[in-house]
Amino acid sequence: MAIDIRDIFKESEKYLNKEIEIEGWIRTLRSSKRFGFIEVNDGTFFANLQVVFDETLQNFPEVEKLPISSAISVKGTLVETPEAKQPFEIQAKEISLLAPSDRDYPLQKKRHTFEYLRTIAHLRPRGNTFNAVFRVRSLAAYAIHKFFQDRGFVYVHTPIITGSDAEGAGEMFRVTTFDLTNVPLHENNQVDYTEDFFGRETNLTVSGQLEAEAYALAFKRVYTFGPTFRAENSNTPRHAAEFWMIEPEIAFADLTDNRKLAEDMMKFLLSYVMEKAPEEMKFFNSFIDKGLIERLENIVNSDFECITYTEAINLLQKSKEQFQFPVKWGMDLQTEHERYISEKVFKGPVFIIDYPKDIKAFYMRLNDDENTVAAMDLLVPGVGEIIGGSQREERLDVLEKRIEEMGMKKDDYWWYLELRKYGGVKHAGYGLGFERAIMYMTGMSNIRDVIPFPRTVGSAEF
Amino acid sequence: MAIDIRDIFKESEKYLNKEIEIEGWIRTLRSSKRFGFIEVNDGTFFANLQVVFDETLQNFPEVEKLPISSAISVKGTLVETPEAKQPFEIQAKEISLLAPSDRDYPLQKKRHTFEYLRTIAHLRPRGNTFNAVFRVRSLAAYAIHKFFQDRGFVYVHTPIITGSDAEGAGEMFRVTTFDLTNVPLHENNQVDYTEDFFGRETNLTVSGQLEAEAYALAFKRVYTFGPTFRAENSNTPRHAAEFWMIEPEIAFADLTDNRKLAEDMMKFLLSYVMEKAPEEMKFFNSFIDKGLIERLENIVNSDFECITYTEAINLLQKSKEQFQFPVKWGMDLQTEHERYISEKVFKGPVFIIDYPKDIKAFYMRLNDDENTVAAMDLLVPGVGEIIGGSQREERLDVLEKRIEEMGMKKDDYWWYLELRKYGGVKHAGYGLGFERAIMYMTGMSNIRDVIPFPRTVGSAEF
Repeated sequence: MAIDIRDIFKESEKYLNKEIEIEGWIRTLRSSKRFGFIEVNDGTFFANLQVVFDETLQNFPEVEKLPISSAISVKGTLVETPEAKQPFEIQAKEISLLAPSDRDYPLQKKRHTFEYLRTIAHLRPRGNTFNAVFRVRSLAAYAIHKFFQDRGFVYVHTPIITGSDAEGAGEMFRVTTFDLTNVPLHENNQVDYTEDFFGRETNLTVSGQLEAEAYALAFKRVYTFGPTFRAENSNTPRHAAEFWMIEPEIAFADLTDNRKLAEDMMKFLLSYVMEKAPEEMKFFNSFIDKGLIERLENIVNSDFECITYTEAINLLQKSKEQFQFPVKWGMDLQTEHERYISEKVFKGPVFIIDYPKDIKAFYMRLNDDENTVAAMDLLVPGVGEIIGGSQREERLDVLEKRIEEMGMKKDDYWWYLELRKYGGVKHAGYGLGFERAIMYMTGMSNIRDVIPFPRTVGSAEF
Repeated sequence: MAIDIRDIFKESEKYLNKEIEIEGWIRTLRSSKRFGFIEVNDGTFFANLQVVFDETLQNFPEVEKLPISSAISVKGTLVETPEAKQPFEIQAKEISLLAPSDRDYPLQKKRHTFEYLRTIAHLRPRGNTFNAVFRVRSLAAYAIHKFFQDRGFVYVHTPIITGSDAEGAGEMFRVTTFDLTNVPLHENNQVDYTEDFFGRETNLTVSGQLEAEAYALAFKRVYTFGPTFRAENSNTPRHAAEFWMIEPEIAFADLTDNRKLAEDMMKFLLSYVMEKAPEEMKFFNSFIDKGLIERLENIVNSDFECITYTEAINLLQKSKEQFQFPVKWGMDLQTEHERYISEKVFKGPVFIIDYPKDIKAFYMRLNDDENTVAAMDLLVPGVGEIIGGSQREERLDVLEKRIEEMGMKKDDYWWYLELRKYGGVKHAGYGLGFERAIMYMTGMSNIRDVIPFPRTVGSAEF
C-alpha cells in the first residue's frame, strides 16, 4: 500500500530507514549516466519527495527518460539526508510506470504567467502556486464551517434560483428553459413567464440574506455558504460573475454582537489556515506577497477598531492626502478612502458603522437620528472592504416605509415583512465574499486565480 | 446575558437553583387566573424550556395574554421538577416582551399538513418537524465536510454556470442576460450566443464530476459539495430542480477503493447525525418513520454486500416476485428491483457493480469483457439507489472511442481528454444526492420537505 507523501513529511520517524512505497507524479527528473533524481508529488502535500535511483534499477534506461507528469510507483528505503536541502529521500529499489505523460506537457519547469495558466485551468493545480491556492481555499472553507458549527450555528442552503432580488437592485442572470428562438410573448410584447419552467421570472441569487433572516428567526444563529452571482459587465481583477459568499445571521443580536462575530470569525479563519497550511503560507509569503504572514498575524493579534462613518469623513477631510474622489458627507467611501483609513490611520482592521441611509440597502435598521442606518463595513489593510453587514430593520412600520420610499413593491416582500409580524426580534448579519478572503490570505491579486474554473464576462471555459 | 436553552439542557447542573436569563419565542402558553405555563424555544435546541409564572409578576395580566410566537426574555430560577414530564423549569421573576406577535400567527398548536407548511416556508422551521429536519440537514452537511477533510480531501468549488454537460445529456437550465423579447439571431435563425454575457451558450451544472477529475489528478483526493440542477418536468416527491450533491473523486484508486470510501462515508454520516441530534432523531423515529433509528443503526453496523449486475439479474429472475417491469439482462434496474434486492435478499445495504455499458455514461471504465463498465450503485432498504459512481475510463484511446460511439463531439471534451495524456492514473468517484440522504436519515418522504425553499417545476416561491 502506497503511503501519502504528507504522512511521510508529517510523521517521518515512522518511516525512516524502512522500505516504503509511494505513488505520485514526476515534477522534475534529472539524471546522469549512472544515477538520477526524481521529485515526486502525489497531491497530498505541498512539497515534493525526492527519489534517488541508479543503474541497479532493472529499467534504468526507461526511468531516466520518463517525461514530467508521468505517474510512477516507487519502492525503496526512506533515508535522512542531513546535508541536503530536503530532510530525507527515498533510495529506490523499484520504480514502475503507472501512467505515462506526453512530452508536450504544458507545465514544464519554466515559469508561466498566471494569464497563460488560466487557459489550462484543468492542469494548473498541479503547479506550486495553484496547488497552494486551492488547498488553502479548501481549508478556509472548512474553517468557516467549523467556526460556525462549533458555535451552534445552523447551516442553511438558501436557494440559488430565485424570484426575488435581495438588494432591490443588482444585475442578475436570467434562468430559463425557453427556446430562445421562440420566447412566448404577451400581446404587449412582454415575456409570458407563466410558460417558463417555474411559471415565473427567475434569476440566479445575488444573496441569501433575506432567506437566512427567516431561518435566524427560527434557529437564533444561522449561516449560509454558497455560490452567488452578478451579471456585471466589469472586467477587473476583483470581479467574477460567480463567487461564493458566507452570510451569517444572528437573532436577539444587534450591531455590536455582529461586529464581535465578524472579528472572531476573521481571526479564527486566518489562524486556522496558518496552522493547517504552514508550507503553503510560507510559499505565498516568499513568492507572492512579501510580508503576508506578518500582516495576517497582526490581524489575529489586534483588536479591531470601530468608528462611525461621520468620524471617518472627518478623518478623511482632516488628512493631507490627495484623493481622486473628493470627500463629503453622504458619499460612498471609495477603496482609496478605505485603504487610507485602515492603512494610514489605524494600521489595522477597522469597522466603519452608521452609514447614511441613502447609500445603503432598504433592510438596514434606521438609527434614531433618522439619517443613518446600523450598517457596518470591515476594512483591512491592503484590500479595503472585506465584510459588509448591518443590523436589520425589525420594525414593520419603519421597514414598510423604507420599501415605499425606495419605490419597491411591498407585495414582492410579503414573507419578509411577515417575519416582522410574528416575534420579529432584533437581528443582524453580514456577508463575507469568500474569494476576497482567499485573495487576502494568499496575496493573490486576481480573483480569476483563486477560483478553480472562473466565470467572468466573456469567459466560461471548462 | 441570556443563556442558550441548549446549554441549559446539556449542562443543567451549571444552572440549577440559580437565577438565569433566557430569551426565546413562545411556543405554547396556558394560564389560569393565578398562574401560567409557557413553553419557550430559542432555536438553539429541539426541546422547549418550561417557564412557570404567577400573579406575583408585575405584568401578569399582559403576560398571560401574549400570543404564540411572541419573543420574550425571562429571568428566574431554574429548578428541578422530578415529577413532571420535563426535567426542570424556570420559575419566573420577570418576563419582558421583546417582540410581539400578531394573533393570526399561522403555526398554532394544531397539526398542519406538510403541503400547507410549504406555503409558509419562511415560518415552517419554527415548528418541531422542520426545526428537526433543518438542524439535521446542517449537521449532515458538516459531517460530510468533516469526513473528507479529516482524510485529507481537498474541497473543490466546481463551476455552477457551465458550458459543458457532464452526462452528455440531462435537461438543463439556460443562463443568459439576453433581453428575451429581443434575442440576437444568426441568419439561419440560430441564437447568436457570442452576444450573450459569456460569449457562448451557458447552462446550470448537472454535475461537477469532470472538473473534480481534473483536481483529483492534482490533489489525489478531492470532493465537491454544491448545488446542481435538473430542468426535468417531473412533479414527483423525489425530484427537485435544484438540489445539493456531494462528489468525491480519488486518484490512484479503483472501484474497490471507491466502494470502501462510500461505505465509510455513509457510516460516518449516519453515526455523526445520530450522535449530534439524538432528540431530533428520536422525534423522527416516533412521529415520522417508526423503526428509523434501528434501520440506520443496522446500516452503521453491517458490512455492505457487493454483487455484480449480472448476479442481480439472476437473483431477480429466480425470485417469485411479480415485478411491474420484466427482468432481462441489459435493462436499467427500477426502484422495485433495487428495493427487492436490498430489502428482501440482503436485508441491508448492497452495492451493484459492473453494469452493461449501454445503460451507463461515457466516462465509465470499460471492463475486460467489453460489455460492462466499472460502475457501482449503492442500494439501501426503503429507498433503493442512494449513491452512483464508477471507476473512470483513464485510457485515452478507449475513451475517445466511447465518445465517438455515443455521437458526442471530442472537441467539447478537449481538456477532459488531456487529463488522460499527462499522467492520467486510474481514478474513481461517486455522487451522493444530499437531499436523498437527508430523506433517508429523517424518514421524510417528500424532497420539498428537506429543502429550505424548494424549487420544483412550476414553483420558485420565496
